[in-house]
Amino acid sequence: MSHHSPGYSLSIRLRYPDAPGFLGKLTSRIGEADGLIGAIDVVDSRDGKITRDITVSASTVEHGQQIAESLRQMPDLEVVHVSDRVFLMHLGGKLEIAPRFPIKTRDDLSMAYTPGVARVCEAIHQDPESAFTLTIKRNMVAVISDGSAILGLGNLGPKAAMPVMEGKAVLFKEFAGVDAFPICLDTQDTEAIIATCRYLAPTFGGINLEDISAPRCVEIEERLEAELEIPVFHDDQHGTAIVVLAALTNALKIVQKKMEELKVVINGAGAAGVAIAKLMHAVGATNLVVCDSTGAINQKRAELNPLKVWLAENTNPSQESGKLADVMQDADVFVGVSAKNVLTVEDVQLMARDAIVFALANPDPEIRPELAAPHVKIMATGRSDFPNQINNVLCFPGLFRGLLDVRAREVNLEMKLAAARAIAETIPENDLLPDYIIPSVFDRRVALAVAEAVSRTAIETGSARKTQMPGVPNTGS
Amino acid sequence: MSHHSPGYSLSIRLRYPDAPGFLGKLTSRIGEADGLIGAIDVVDSRDGKITRDITVSASTVEHGQQIAESLRQMPDLEVVHVSDRVFLMHLGGKLEIAPRFPIKTRDDLSMAYTPGVARVCEAIHQDPESAFTLTIKRNMVAVISDGSAILGLGNLGPKAAMPVMEGKAVLFKEFAGVDAFPICLDTQDTEAIIATCRYLAPTFGGINLEDISAPRCVEIEERLEAELEIPVFHDDQHGTAIVVLAALTNALKIVQKKMEELKVVINGAGAAGVAIAKLMHAVGATNLVVCDSTGAINQKRAELNPLKVWLAENTNPSQESGKLADVMQDADVFVGVSAKNVLTVEDVQLMARDAIVFALANPDPEIRPELAAPHVKIMATGRSDFPNQINNVLCFPGLFRGLLDVRAREVNLEMKLAAARAIAETIPENDLLPDYIIPSVFDRRVALAVAEAVSRTAIETGSARKTQMPGVPNTGS
Repeated sequence: MSHHSPGYSLSIRLRYPDAPGFLGKLTSRIGEADGLIGAIDVVDSRDGKITRDITVSASTVEHGQQIAESLRQMPDLEVVHVSDRVFLMHLGGKLEIAPRFPIKTRDDLSMAYTPGVARVCEAIHQDPESAFTLTIKRNMVAVISDGSAILGLGNLGPKAAMPVMEGKAVLFKEFAGVDAFPICLDTQDTEAIIATCRYLAPTFGGINLEDISAPRCVEIEERLEAELEIPVFHDDQHGTAIVVLAALTNALKIVQKKMEELKVVINGAGAAGVAIAKLMHAVGATNLVVCDSTGAINQKRAELNPLKVWLAENTNPSQESGKLADVMQDADVFVGVSAKNVLTVEDVQLMARDAIVFALANPDPEIRPELAAPHVKIMATGRSDFPNQINNVLCFPGLFRGLLDVRAREVNLEMKLAAARAIAETIPENDLLPDYIIPSVFDRRVALAVAEAVSRTAIETGSARKTQMPGVPNTGS
Repeated sequence: MSHHSPGYSLSIRLRYPDAPGFLGKLTSRIGEADGLIGAIDVVDSRDGKITRDITVSASTVEHGQQIAESLRQMPDLEVVHVSDRVFLMHLGGKLEIAPRFPIKTRDDLSMAYTPGVARVCEAIHQDPESAFTLTIKRNMVAVISDGSAILGLGNLGPKAAMPVMEGKAVLFKEFAGVDAFPICLDTQDTEAIIATCRYLAPTFGGINLEDISAPRCVEIEERLEAELEIPVFHDDQHGTAIVVLAALTNALKIVQKKMEELKVVINGAGAAGVAIAKLMHAVGATNLVVCDSTGAINQKRAELNPLKVWLAENTNPSQESGKLADVMQDADVFVGVSAKNVLTVEDVQLMARDAIVFALANPDPEIRPELAAPHVKIMATGRSDFPNQINNVLCFPGLFRGLLDVRAREVNLEMKLAAARAIAETIPENDLLPDYIIPSVFDRRVALAVAEAVSRTAIETGSARKTQMPGVPNTGS
């Protein structure tokens, strides 16, 4: 089974004699090379020749090259050029800065800049909280990374991290009207990152930390969240945990099990795994067994980092030990935030009735859904080409929308739980299906529901500067 | 003489009986209160009453309040509300982040974010210079301040500095298509600012420092310019110096004097004054006398900061001493970057024939133009309501456009001189007049000319990563 993805998609410009049947022959050729054809456009037609741009999805970079090579072998067909659509889309970066009004006259200049601006500066000096009204702080989030843990690619450094952070900023705006600016720091020193975020804080209404490696990410977030007067949220930890909790909440409705009665095995004890364990623990799932590459974490394990010490002290009440396979017996839920193919069919067969498997490693899950399917009731992955995609974009745009709308000072546990509940409840209980436990990332109701829940909870928990709910959902524009 | 400014402009909503002559009476009332009327709009008309919004410019905040009060006293007239137009314009901040394309489908998401984005990250990891092609670094400048010297307002801190930095970012985009993001730092420690800028550098193609107090600003800029692989430019120093040099270049054409023969008195030895002295010195004006509030800086002065030590060693060849009035004798040029009304008519009368006075203190110049006029050949200020406005916006947008277009590594002296020459030469020599030595800030040719000159000079001096001039002037969009 090959997975064609627009992530490996080409725009191929071809010129050929405008004769009946030729288009059919060349599209067949692409099909024989296992290329998936998208749009077909005419560029021009003259001198008996036609030029077309054809969009073709492949499954890998090499596969794309093979498709192009196959076309180059075809008689009478000229391959004018082959463009990688992903790189085309990234040319020049994915964001720009847009003034909210034009400066066309001296009057505009006098109001937006000197001398008019001086009075606005003085007003903020008199009342620093008015920065939330009179500056971009109102709606601006910093997306900050040090490039130490980019996607599944590892420590590629700040410049290489930038396309991910820009993409995140695009999603913030598209899904919730939040302005987000990507910043990739040229340091991986914990203290330097904390100090830099502290210095940057006046400009922003919130900070989204991203792709910072564990365990540093936890210390950085906890220290900043305590120090700063704006919310700080490490999405790789809590965004993942919130969406997993939402999906699990709905899955439990289907299998009619209770959180407190579950045995949950989490594979992966990085930032995401620990955050998932902590959030589940907070809602009463106490029989959690977390495995890292050495095996189950328990109190006998030596030389654990601070995150794993917490796990050893707060999870695994039966002190189970051994490899993943050794702790899967009677598990109700498996959550993988680890690596591809580490869960076997035999492991799944050990699970309790109506097993729930969230295999979230990207792009290749811990077990292939078609292998697990016969043995589980509910299966979810991080991918868009299988049912039940667990994706952070369901959380972070609406979460920050809600935080900004009430000028929250922090993100607390209650808000995280409220966000998870809001995501889950976007699907009415009667509509839930084993293949529909979590809304689509393009379900526009989700961000609104999450924002509303987070704003309300911020007010209720005394973490908001505003004490009234925004009247109309703010889409930030 | 009162100066009405849109910087003190109100939008007043009035309701009154829709009777002939009423509008005339109320506009007369505004005129009697010395308010300057702009737009008059109808909001609605019903029940025999009409509601209008009237835009009124005042000369100060108090004057605006007086105008409103005067209207409140008028029989049959209801003042519905009075809005400060400058604050209205700043509500919510002056910038937003705009994705360069929408994310509407799963395919968009797969290309702009995971999984497609991973290949772009890897490409930058392989070739870090490709960050200039594949990320916002291509066209993004950081506008960084610590809020220690905001306009003429002093040390108001980072939050209060934000409206100025946002305004600057608006101008970058409007005048040269440069994306600029404002960052106000919550520290005024020199080392912390330098470290933070270093950590921020991967995201940006250049750094514009702004409103940082002297002498720290000079050390911060010099250290960063030496350390970083992108240009760092403190606009308060060099932007001002470049535009002053451009204006002086044209003024000298009119009075037919040579740079080397001039006696120049500069009043103000802060960041701008020192930079002006250095740039003039570099083009051969050696007879410079710089005064601070104590008087002329010479080698006998004690306890000078490092900037003034440079002035003592490199200017004032005749070792003149005393107050400003004591050194004005036979000066060809006076440049004020100091405070209002410090230059007297008697001082100006001491100057050489065809005197040139640049009185740049804002908003009130060192001498009122109408007082100086009878005694000088050429007069310039920083204000838009007198001829010859010397304004940094003539320089910084085009300068950074030119730097970004060739991916410059630094800003060097040659580029600053080229920028000054380009601004000056925007006005053909035959068109020069005593009241027209510098182009209008809205002259769109200026940024293009500056950009072209800076790009060319960057290539010539080996400071550019690109070795070819951009084919078509890049407006960044």
